Amino acid sequence: MQFGSDNQAGASKQVLETLERANTGFTHGYGDDQWCAKAKEALTQVFGCELEVFFVATGTAANSLALSCLVKPWETFICHHQAHVLLDESTAPEFFSGGARPVPISHRAGKLEPRHLEQFFQAVSPEVPHNPGAAALSITQANEAGLIYTAAEIKALCTLAHANKLHIHMDGARFANAVAALGCAPADITWKAGVDVLSLGATKCGALAAEAVIFFNRGLAADFIHRRKRSGHLISKGRLFGAQFVGWLEDNHWLKLAKHANRQAQQLAETLAAYSSIQQVWPCQANEIFLIMPAQLAEKLSAAGAEFYQWPVNALPAGTALSNSNVFVRLVTSFASSDEHISEFCEIIRTY
Amino acid sequence: MQFGSDNQAGASKQVLETLERANTGFTHGYGDDQWCAKAKEALTQVFGCELEVFFVATGTAANSLALSCLVKPWETFICHHQAHVLLDESTAPEFFSGGARPVPISHRAGKLEPRHLEQFFQAVSPEVPHNPGAAALSITQANEAGLIYTAAEIKALCTLAHANKLHIHMDGARFANAVAALGCAPADITWKAGVDVLSLGATKCGALAAEAVIFFNRGLAADFIHRRKRSGHLISKGRLFGAQFVGWLEDNHWLKLAKHANRQAQQLAETLAAYSSIQQVWPCQANEIFLIMPAQLAEKLSAAGAEFYQWPVNALPAGTALSNSNVFVRLVTSFASSDEHISEFCEIIRTY
Amino acid sequence: MQFGSDNQAGASKQVLETLERANTGFTHGYGDDQWCAKAKEALTQVFGCELEVFFVATGTAANSLALSCLVKPWETFICHHQAHVLLDESTAPEFFSGGARPVPISHRAGKLEPRHLEQFFQAVSPEVPHNPGAAALSITQANEAGLIYTAAEIKALCTLAHANKLHIHMDGARFANAVAALGCAPADITWKAGVDVLSLGATKCGALAAEAVIFFNRGLAADFIHRRKRSGHLISKGRLFGAQFVGWLEDNHWLKLAKHANRQAQQLAETLAAYSSIQQVWPCQANEIFLIMPAQLAEKLSAAGAEFYQWPVNALPAGTALSNSNVFVRLVTSFASSDEHISEFCEIIRTY
Amino acid sequence: MQFGSDNQAGASKQVLETLERANTGFTHGYGDDQWCAKAKEALTQVFGCELEVFFVATGTAANSLALSCLVKPWETFICHHQAHVLLDESTAPEFFSGGARPVPISHRAGKLEPRHLEQFFQAVSPEVPHNPGAAALSITQANEAGLIYTAAEIKALCTLAHANKLHIHMDGARFANAVAALGCAPADITWKAGVDVLSLGATKCGALAAEAVIFFNRGLAADFIHRRKRSGHLISKGRLFGAQFVGWLEDNHWLKLAKHANRQAQQLAETLAAYSSIQQVWPCQANEIFLIMPAQLAEKLSAAGAEFYQWPVNALPAGTALSNSNVFVRLVTSFASSDEHISEFCEIIRTY
Repeated sequence: MQFGSDNQAGASKQVLETLERANTGFTHGYGDDQWCAKAKEALTQVFGCELEVFFVATGTAANSLALSCLVKPWETFICHHQAHVLLDESTAPEFFSGGARPVPISHRAGKLEPRHLEQFFQAVSPEVPHNPGAAALSITQANEAGLIYTAAEIKALCTLAHANKLHIHMDGARFANAVAALGCAPADITWKAGVDVLSLGATKCGALAAEAVIFFNRGLAADFIHRRKRSGHLISKGRLFGAQFVGWLEDNHWLKLAKHANRQAQQLAETLAAYSSIQQVWPCQANEIFLIMPAQLAEKLSAAGAEFYQWPVNALPAGTALSNSNVFVRLVTSFASSDEHISEFCEIIRTY
Repeated sequence: MQFGSDNQAGASKQVLETLERANTGFTHGYGDDQWCAKAKEALTQVFGCELEVFFVATGTAANSLALSCLVKPWETFICHHQAHVLLDESTAPEFFSGGARPVPISHRAGKLEPRHLEQFFQAVSPEVPHNPGAAALSITQANEAGLIYTAAEIKALCTLAHANKLHIHMDGARFANAVAALGCAPADITWKAGVDVLSLGATKCGALAAEAVIFFNRGLAADFIHRRKRSGHLISKGRLFGAQFVGWLEDNHWLKLAKHANRQAQQLAETLAAYSSIQQVWPCQANEIFLIMPAQLAEKLSAAGAEFYQWPVNALPAGTALSNSNVFVRLVTSFASSDEHISEFCEIIRTY
Repeated sequence: MQFGSDNQAGASKQVLETLERANTGFTHGYGDDQWCAKAKEALTQVFGCELEVFFVATGTAANSLALSCLVKPWETFICHHQAHVLLDESTAPEFFSGGARPVPISHRAGKLEPRHLEQFFQAVSPEVPHNPGAAALSITQANEAGLIYTAAEIKALCTLAHANKLHIHMDGARFANAVAALGCAPADITWKAGVDVLSLGATKCGALAAEAVIFFNRGLAADFIHRRKRSGHLISKGRLFGAQFVGWLEDNHWLKLAKHANRQAQQLAETLAAYSSIQQVWPCQANEIFLIMPAQLAEKLSAAGAEFYQWPVNALPAGTALSNSNVFVRLVTSFASSDEHISEFCEIIRTY
Repeated sequence: MQFGSDNQAGASKQVLETLERANTGFTHGYGDDQWCAKAKEALTQVFGCELEVFFVATGTAANSLALSCLVKPWETFICHHQAHVLLDESTAPEFFSGGARPVPISHRAGKLEPRHLEQFFQAVSPEVPHNPGAAALSITQANEAGLIYTAAEIKALCTLAHANKLHIHMDGARFANAVAALGCAPADITWKAGVDVLSLGATKCGALAAEAVIFFNRGLAADFIHRRKRSGHLISKGRLFGAQFVGWLEDNHWLKLAKHANRQAQQLAETLAAYSSIQQVWPCQANEIFLIMPAQLAEKLSAAGAEFYQWPVNALPAGTALSNSNVFVRLVTSFASSDEHISEFCEIIRTY
């Protein structure tokens, strides 16, 4: 019953087999190989546009390298108050950008909304060079509350941001889950909506370690190869990343994996809805569920081997209180979550 | 009628004359001279304790260098949401610290309060190494709302911060104004209250360019000489700073200058209190006044030659609205503000 | 006939199979898994001492992260004039250390020698804080000229360095080749000789992407987890690295792979020794061969499909000239170099 | 007998008096004042061209800020092996540039020569992104050996550098001494010869703390205001710098001061030439003299109150040895060096 994170499983069978196939023979190093070429081709197909793509091993590297191409060291980027790039990546954004600053602009709302941007732009008129000015917006899709932005919502945010001369980064650590849930074309929620650069994560959804930084706005990618190399993120045997992406994308494998994860979360959420002692903090839209539940229940679940994290109370929406007898927890499903685990988990709750 | 900032005047007569005296003869370079030695001695007298002191030219350098000794690149420091180090010093804190992050924790309150720290510490329990953890607290005295912390208030903040393993930095750009207003010993609101390092600014209160970074917690100063040199803040003719501080401190000159500035602000505030169309946003405690006034009045004042700044609306306290016909402005008095300027300014308002 | 680099092959069979075995089931993320634990255990056995170990994907990350624990931003580290950390890792050392500086101290000698250190220490007596002072020595084993330091040589360098308060880093991208060639215990050329921290590379010798930063001087590792996280080098599915190292170390697999690579290089070198038109620049001690050969021969080899790099002329030893009709090239063998490739390559030369 | 450095004197009378004049009245802050405007006007006259200029307090800040506009963090700048920016400014170049690297290319020659650049460009053909590539050349005028580049020499260096896509920075800490010695127009050895940006130092030659970063290539200055602010080098009372430069430039005051310093050095050098026991290492061209002299003589001079520095032996030209009974010393004269001091110094030598 591993609901701690979608990084607790290994690679999917198809991804691993592709890696094995790619292992034989000699290639050039540093990404100049056929597997990286194929992966780029597959991504071009998936997004239906020309793009620049660079592979790295972690989401933190992907996000920070991408953002470092959008903001100068004396600028800021704005983001959701629970953004992974703000809270869960140490000070990587500062490190990679040479000192640019993340500025959270949503106050305990589930998603970033145009009004948050409007308020921000109205309140702030940076006096140069004293006040650091905003140069980018970072959106997470699906986001840290397990919520999904519609194409229209992304377009509205991007339009406002572009009008204020900000570039747009999308943290797509769970992009597959979002596409699977929306049933849209990947293009609809990225470049067609105004996204300049996407961190596309395969790791959480069936790869071992494979993230792609995809520039739709290719002019922004000029320095990327330098930034990747000097941060130690250019691997010599590039096929490791190329092969994972080839296997992940082939035959819509990535979306099948994501759909499974979403479905398991959905099933869990529906079952839990029956219990009045359990409050679902946000609607379950992708593969994450945020719950307020009795502390005793949480303990019982843990004791039975269920894994999940307690979540910080300042991630609760405005107006939602947490009594002393309750805890705030997060459950995450993955491509590897089995029906048995879901059933077992629900059964413990039923008999609580 | 210069109320734009306390940096619009030159040096006081006494400071300038000391600089002239110090100009003759040969000395060793880089701060190894008698004027720097005398300045250190004077500061030791003023604070009544052993201390390490380093001189630099700007408040931004003083604050950032001090903070860089308190936080590692993967840590944060907490501060008031209107702190100068947060808003008005570009991304200098990040630059000097190698990427540490400022985190504002007060929400539209005038001063930092223990409850802000308590809420922060309760909400956050950093998971290492994912979440950057807080390592310092920065307080401004007098602060960016023109308010002054009492010795007891500072002690309460420092006690809480130390209990959570944070070091304390005080931005004393207007420290003289605070001491003059409180009538306390400088020690009472610094090391006796728990402050580890103070940026003591002379520039705004009668010097030309002279800031002292004073370590009461001397163990924290170990790397300072390296940090100052490699950031280009070690001047070769150190007497420039030493002499200014000697002249500034001699015969309580610094407090006399500060008292004058405070008195002029007080007089202005008292006069303005008579007008119902003018709202004083915060009580006038030092040498700054924050006002909501009719836009037309502000224009009339400007047209008559009065200088002052409009202030960002997000600096207003929670619950204070700004109608379209009003503006939010800041007035600052200095050691050089004359009675004539105050009278002239008030007269324009009277005849509005 | 791939002699371009030892990164042109994939993973060895044993490494890949271990990765496959490790892929099943759930684990905790971020290195808190049984495969990382096993890998640490295996390394402890291999080196025969207590150690701290951290896994990353690239040699550049391993070297730079290691060095960043040894030098402060205002310090330098000294190294060979052809060191990979100096020439081939962009400005990664500066990036990770926050601005420390690499200083080459050997002038066209094949290996670092005690006299280079002695000359350096005699010539330089840093005036604090003006001159950046040396805080670390970085040695590569086997080094960038394909040469190997004996245990006694390393001990001599480390003793001199320690006596001057420098810490010692070893770049072990080809450490396996060195151990295989020397037939020594890994401990003999590392901690027993005075090495504080080792970047142990598995990638070049049979892994896909797996490098271990091993601290023998464990006190130096205090900040490593923060440095790794904020540089994006903490992967979520840690088993990727753990499993590769387990497979690589099991049953002396790593040394068998290295011995093969060394043997192939040796065979090539012996054959080439018969041709007076070809000059071997350095003795072949590990798996690299540096040759001066007729440009026409090099072209013929390339045309026949042989891959190898021309090498910069300033890597030639002092006193070695390069005529216009000759080129300076490097050949590298790997665990995957076949007898057929060696024969084919030699045959082309024979018939030249 | 202060010959330790040209920073041991205070400000010249004219500079100080201008500062006093500038002290009265109110101005805008942060360089938006009439004194800075006048200083810019004066510099435009002196150089006879349009330029961008920014004032800072130290030479280290001026040099590093200038260089940070020329090189990206993954690039290098080349310089003389004794360059102040390489040896005497801690790791400030790395700090300000975000990690770019200084690379010395002259080996114990007195001045940078075209052949040094040619050898460098021939030996190095950076493989992107592995090898950091050179993006700038830094020349010091007068240089660290007390030598002066002629206009033709500078032009030759700049032409070669520009042809290889490098920008040119000139460290003009002793620029006044060079112009005074050459008797040329300032333009001849700067923008007319190809210099893109000049650090013009007034401090060593009669100011207290005043350095100007002058961009002849104005397009390179785009980010300067941000870099200056976030490094804490934007002073609030800008008149401090503006006034010093106005006073320094007025009526060729700066050249008169420099001529005096040069003349004193010349006189000293001529006298010393009579003694066979004293070897002048470089010809005296500006205000610095480098001598090999008997250790006993150096001791006698020190005992008599003469101040000067022993100099590092690796600053000696190739082929110049230092016996155990001799020492290598540097003497520096300044605008404040008196005839009496010169006579007294020479007299001690005469009676040795």
